[in-house]
Amino acid sequence: MPTTITVDAPVATLINVFVVEPARQRELVDLLARATEDVMRHRPGFVAANIHASSDGTRVVNYAQWESAEAFQAMLADPVAREHMGECGALAESFDPHLYTVESVHHTG
Amino acid sequence: MPTTITVDAPVATLINVFVVEPARQRELVDLLARATEDVMRHRPGFVAANIHASSDGTRVVNYAQWESAEAFQAMLADPVAREHMGECGALAESFDPHLYTVESVHHTG
Repeated sequence: MPTTITVDAPVATLINVFVVEPARQRELVDLLARATEDVMRHRPGFVAANIHASSDGTRVVNYAQWESAEAFQAMLADPVAREHMGECGALAESFDPHLYTVESVHHTG
Repeated sequence: MPTTITVDAPVATLINVFVVEPARQRELVDLLARATEDVMRHRPGFVAANIHASSDGTRVVNYAQWESAEAFQAMLADPVAREHMGECGALAESFDPHLYTVESVHHTG
């Protein structure tokens, strides 16, 4: 099922913003997609990850959902996951991961 | 309908990351929600906005969808919308809006 954003979903939302040189944006998108398929999605508590590229070439965002903050923290402690995260981080100028809750949603339909 | 994230959706995705003092995070979340309800959602091409608060208190993220980049740019030129965006920006230490495309999605279900 595609990711849906709702206030009451029983998930922890991870938003990780990578600042990247435009010349390396495509490479970072591809590496994140591969690391997600090969490693992250097999970790306990993974729900979804969605890789976004900014139109101006300078940002990549991973909008992800985990079953809980604890599941996300456990993944961070996993050596294989850490290695893949390190590879992604090395392609970026900086990255800024935080866990979030959805506070309010607004839509037209 | 709640926001769903898919590769082929005919929308432009805006992700705006606000850096905020934890003491002002709640105020910023509330102001963004009000500005969205009162102003943004009535602008042509608005699809959805989803306000997120980081668990550590230091970030607020608006994950929004517009029908097109042009609709988003037209909103930016609207004086009333600009005034509300300015109020939100004034509560934050910084903000970093970019338009994105969804490059890949990964999920378990």
